[in-house]
Amino acid sequence: MKKISVAILGATGMIGQRFVQLLEDHPYFELSGLYASERSDGKQLHETLKIRDHQFTEDSLNMRISAINIEEIAHTSRVAFSGLPSDIAGNIETELANAGVAVFSNASNHRMNDDVPLLIPECNADHLDVVKEQGSFANGGFIVTNANCSTTGIALPLKVLDNAFGLEQVIASTYQAISGAGYPGVPSLDILGNIVPYIKGEEEKMESELAKILGSLDNGKITNSNIQTMVNCARVPVVDGHLESLILRTSRDASVEEIEEVMEEFRGEPQELQLPSAPLHPIIVRHEADRPQPALDVLAGEPARARGMSAVVGRVRKKENYIKMFVLSHNTLRGGAGGSVLNAELTASRGLL
Amino acid sequence: MKKISVAILGATGMIGQRFVQLLEDHPYFELSGLYASERSDGKQLHETLKIRDHQFTEDSLNMRISAINIEEIAHTSRVAFSGLPSDIAGNIETELANAGVAVFSNASNHRMNDDVPLLIPECNADHLDVVKEQGSFANGGFIVTNANCSTTGIALPLKVLDNAFGLEQVIASTYQAISGAGYPGVPSLDILGNIVPYIKGEEEKMESELAKILGSLDNGKITNSNIQTMVNCARVPVVDGHLESLILRTSRDASVEEIEEVMEEFRGEPQELQLPSAPLHPIIVRHEADRPQPALDVLAGEPARARGMSAVVGRVRKKENYIKMFVLSHNTLRGGAGGSVLNAELTASRGLL
Amino acid sequence: MKKISVAILGATGMIGQRFVQLLEDHPYFELSGLYASERSDGKQLHETLKIRDHQFTEDSLNMRISAINIEEIAHTSRVAFSGLPSDIAGNIETELANAGVAVFSNASNHRMNDDVPLLIPECNADHLDVVKEQGSFANGGFIVTNANCSTTGIALPLKVLDNAFGLEQVIASTYQAISGAGYPGVPSLDILGNIVPYIKGEEEKMESELAKILGSLDNGKITNSNIQTMVNCARVPVVDGHLESLILRTSRDASVEEIEEVMEEFRGEPQELQLPSAPLHPIIVRHEADRPQPALDVLAGEPARARGMSAVVGRVRKKENYIKMFVLSHNTLRGGAGGSVLNAELTASRGLL
Amino acid sequence: MKKISVAILGATGMIGQRFVQLLEDHPYFELSGLYASERSDGKQLHETLKIRDHQFTEDSLNMRISAINIEEIAHTSRVAFSGLPSDIAGNIETELANAGVAVFSNASNHRMNDDVPLLIPECNADHLDVVKEQGSFANGGFIVTNANCSTTGIALPLKVLDNAFGLEQVIASTYQAISGAGYPGVPSLDILGNIVPYIKGEEEKMESELAKILGSLDNGKITNSNIQTMVNCARVPVVDGHLESLILRTSRDASVEEIEEVMEEFRGEPQELQLPSAPLHPIIVRHEADRPQPALDVLAGEPARARGMSAVVGRVRKKENYIKMFVLSHNTLRGGAGGSVLNAELTASRGLL
Repeated sequence: MKKISVAILGATGMIGQRFVQLLEDHPYFELSGLYASERSDGKQLHETLKIRDHQFTEDSLNMRISAINIEEIAHTSRVAFSGLPSDIAGNIETELANAGVAVFSNASNHRMNDDVPLLIPECNADHLDVVKEQGSFANGGFIVTNANCSTTGIALPLKVLDNAFGLEQVIASTYQAISGAGYPGVPSLDILGNIVPYIKGEEEKMESELAKILGSLDNGKITNSNIQTMVNCARVPVVDGHLESLILRTSRDASVEEIEEVMEEFRGEPQELQLPSAPLHPIIVRHEADRPQPALDVLAGEPARARGMSAVVGRVRKKENYIKMFVLSHNTLRGGAGGSVLNAELTASRGLL
Repeated sequence: MKKISVAILGATGMIGQRFVQLLEDHPYFELSGLYASERSDGKQLHETLKIRDHQFTEDSLNMRISAINIEEIAHTSRVAFSGLPSDIAGNIETELANAGVAVFSNASNHRMNDDVPLLIPECNADHLDVVKEQGSFANGGFIVTNANCSTTGIALPLKVLDNAFGLEQVIASTYQAISGAGYPGVPSLDILGNIVPYIKGEEEKMESELAKILGSLDNGKITNSNIQTMVNCARVPVVDGHLESLILRTSRDASVEEIEEVMEEFRGEPQELQLPSAPLHPIIVRHEADRPQPALDVLAGEPARARGMSAVVGRVRKKENYIKMFVLSHNTLRGGAGGSVLNAELTASRGLL
Repeated sequence: MKKISVAILGATGMIGQRFVQLLEDHPYFELSGLYASERSDGKQLHETLKIRDHQFTEDSLNMRISAINIEEIAHTSRVAFSGLPSDIAGNIETELANAGVAVFSNASNHRMNDDVPLLIPECNADHLDVVKEQGSFANGGFIVTNANCSTTGIALPLKVLDNAFGLEQVIASTYQAISGAGYPGVPSLDILGNIVPYIKGEEEKMESELAKILGSLDNGKITNSNIQTMVNCARVPVVDGHLESLILRTSRDASVEEIEEVMEEFRGEPQELQLPSAPLHPIIVRHEADRPQPALDVLAGEPARARGMSAVVGRVRKKENYIKMFVLSHNTLRGGAGGSVLNAELTASRGLL
Repeated sequence: MKKISVAILGATGMIGQRFVQLLEDHPYFELSGLYASERSDGKQLHETLKIRDHQFTEDSLNMRISAINIEEIAHTSRVAFSGLPSDIAGNIETELANAGVAVFSNASNHRMNDDVPLLIPECNADHLDVVKEQGSFANGGFIVTNANCSTTGIALPLKVLDNAFGLEQVIASTYQAISGAGYPGVPSLDILGNIVPYIKGEEEKMESELAKILGSLDNGKITNSNIQTMVNCARVPVVDGHLESLILRTSRDASVEEIEEVMEEFRGEPQELQLPSAPLHPIIVRHEADRPQPALDVLAGEPARARGMSAVVGRVRKKENYIKMFVLSHNTLRGGAGGSVLNAELTASRGLL
């Protein structure tokens, strides 16, 4: 089978370089080019290295980055993976879609558009259908977004618990890694030995995105969920891995064992389709007293291609009519580039690429 | 006025050394001795230094530490400040009370006893009266405890909001500093660049202690509050300062401005009595987008003697019928030695020392 | 005595704000204005806070920052303390001197000029005289620089050891704090849990600046020292305090006790003149096995106004014909704003302001 | 070929668990048992997890740890890999050798014995021969040690430079990771945001071990090298990877290019023998301005089995007659368990197992 040609936008950034990592030897996709702003035109990847825990191939390290050129990308690439910052992503992604490119984006610009799926394949694979409402779809161009990094990790267990027990209220506090702010991102003087209880726009995004992701598709339209969601966000001195404290109320009572079991046994459409980046266990439930921890669990996920793609849940407890737990997910893999790649794999499996 | 002689128990630990710091030149108290386990008998304070941000006087640095000796302490000291670990604090504190010593303790052992006040003078100064129920009181010996370090910081705003608007539900997630675990405490391999979402017994303590502190005194007995409280605790790589995410439901509605105002204007009994360690503003409300932060706010509190004694509240917001905010307090000052010293000052002002 | 009016340049940065801290209630100087780039024009200090360990007065926090205006500064201020970045400091400082202002600068631009003293008052107070060679001196304007933050700390013990035992070779490796790079400075992704063995231009600066500082003044000209100096510099995840590993060869042999004694007993001209920011002990020698440490020793220095102004030496050992030791100094106090203030105090005491 | 049965001693520690990692599916060795102190008897590996960056197999995680039993080990294992702490390693290792077991040890106890090789196969493979002098050798039992973790990393480039240019003087300052102190090891309160310029006995070990490793074998006896070596050691807040600043004097002059080339092209006996854990490039020379860095380079080494086995050198410069550089190596892989495994592979290839 011929591989699908893909471009990476924002290749000098954290997310862009995660895309490079994930697309080294991918069974569906092959790289047609790396793109970033004018400023980086001509640089090689190794000159702009942002990722600590992956040893890129020599080929990757030597790849040259070009300034974004819509025509060139449309000419060479069926797909564009976008790790662009939101101040420029909006227009570029629209232009690419109009030029017939399937765009899988991490940027927030289009997420809340009615005709753009905010896709987490295990949660709402059916939402992919709304791309057909996009004007450019007839020419093969469309935009699929993935959610904010702090939304994605908890969406997996929340969806499962909603299905099983009826979710009424979600109260979350986050412990978010610095890689979520990109590079250079958070100044070290702000975060070394410190916690910053504020991430601009993050709480609003989490609250609105969860409503869309957990919403239902009726007659080709997404109706938001009306689960009450309240979030406090904070940045912590951790490199990778968003940890989140959850306190939940469900309409149907369940024991801790039932809650853990329904999460452990959950498999979604990516698992059924055996998509390459789908983790065997979308949700891993830890039973130790002190897990999940970023340092120990951030790369959870099997097989090798799905490292960092599982959400890791731990400390599931009940108190009166509430469930308490912690969830960890990798903010630049599952909550970033890995999420986009999985979205693209699902889209390919539907014959849309 | 003659100063009251005081002994410090646990002088090789974090809390014990905060006591030394706070009692250098205290207007009510003078040091009669430093005590710790046999192992440290004969050492000088400078050989066991645990505190980073205070320059001790030469006199303090040269003080010798002795093994704990109940008789000796009872002979030389009217008051004992205890920073002992809970595995040995229980018995020693009881013996000292029986020997006629007024014990002000940071240990958890006696906190939930009916006749032991769990005292935060701005919140429940009236609870001090229950010491009179203690068997040893007739001989001048009694035990007063302060709350867990993560309970204390939030108790101040919660008490104020309960009085003003009727508190129904408290949902908290904590970001707790490593100094809360004492020394050697948390191994660096566990916490460097990591978050540990578990502190043994902490959530249970916070939930039960808040009920007692926010409870009412009727006929000499404390009746627990029945506010629903749910807590998730985590350790973060910060030296000093517990940050806590709060999501609250009150029975009476109030605007953000009213909520902030009632906290800013609050003054308790320590402020009325002008106790030496009482901060002018028990609760400081920050209005910047990104405060409070441990690195910037942990030492908040005026005058100089009350540094680290104010709770700092920020990011007060409303969402539907809930209030969202963050609270920071110094876990070894307000939530540790400083809390005990303030308790002792209140007790002295009542003529009980 | 009337206080000398002083302006602070670069008031939104780390060093600029240390100047504000040090000039709150200074016996010689009073603030006439805060200056920074156009971008910050009109902001109040509290909106740009960079310093963690000082509680500014309300007056300081509310001061307004203006865009730099040479005429205005020359009109209102006898002295300008400069914490400007080196890409703009050069011209501005020259213009101010030409306009009759005495400039005390942290920037590197003019340090190596023959007629500009690179001043550490305990080391080379006599070098101040070369300001008289500056063209603007007749009108009262001149430039005095202090050394690079990593040079300053070791210059103190090196000068003393050179005088006492004849220094032949200096081999240094540095452990430099992030505050040395200013704000935003080092991205957290680069330094959290990491060491970066490179600081642009730092090794060259240290090697050339030491030669000038340790040089001798003959006939109004500074002749560089010819001590062989070799340096490797690295950035470490510490907020404040440059630690440096030193291995030294002297021409005259001395015991560890003699070496320690000559450093402990050293007093320079600032101590003789009792300048306000002069530490009683310019060099503090620690005898514990594991000192100096940034967390414990960075603020060493008495009296209160001289906190962070002492160099702290520890682990003095001998091996064959070499001396081994570690030195710590506060990079933004002694190695930054504090150094400039001390320079200005010395200059004032000479009647030059 | 039948695999050689091996026991791991100290399996609850950092080094012990690195052995488990490295022996999962090793071509020469198969695990016969995990051993530690009585305290851990019966525990499974996953209950004592110390390593962050390796995902153990389920089989490994479920392995049971037994209390050390010399007879049992001698009965089941041809080889013992020892990650025991030095307070107990000495006797146990001697007893095992006497019982006919080939011991490959990380402990310092036997390193300086005349008949014990202090082996780094690329540096001094010929030293292995001295095991034949051990009394137990006739029965198949002997002890081979690897060097201190901070010695090993620099020994590789030093050996190469000594061979090529004649090394006269080595001046080193270290930036050592916390994993070097084992677990629980360094308390977080000591090292978070701090540097500790002291590691007990480390400087002495480095100075004496280097002399032995760089020494020559004549008539079956090792003669120490007489290169002058001076070291200052410090602990830094990094999880894995010892960085070291080197300033060197050689007897023959060489250009930076020659120095880099001789290191890059170096291949030792492990490379010739293609031992499984031998990195293709024992020394990797980086040419970027700011490398090596622990976060980016600690796992350098190919193929996969040799990750963390290369020393990474960078910033090679000359100043007068000295060479300046930085070296990084993985302290628990190349400088710990990986070094021992490579030693055992060399020993096996010599037919001694």
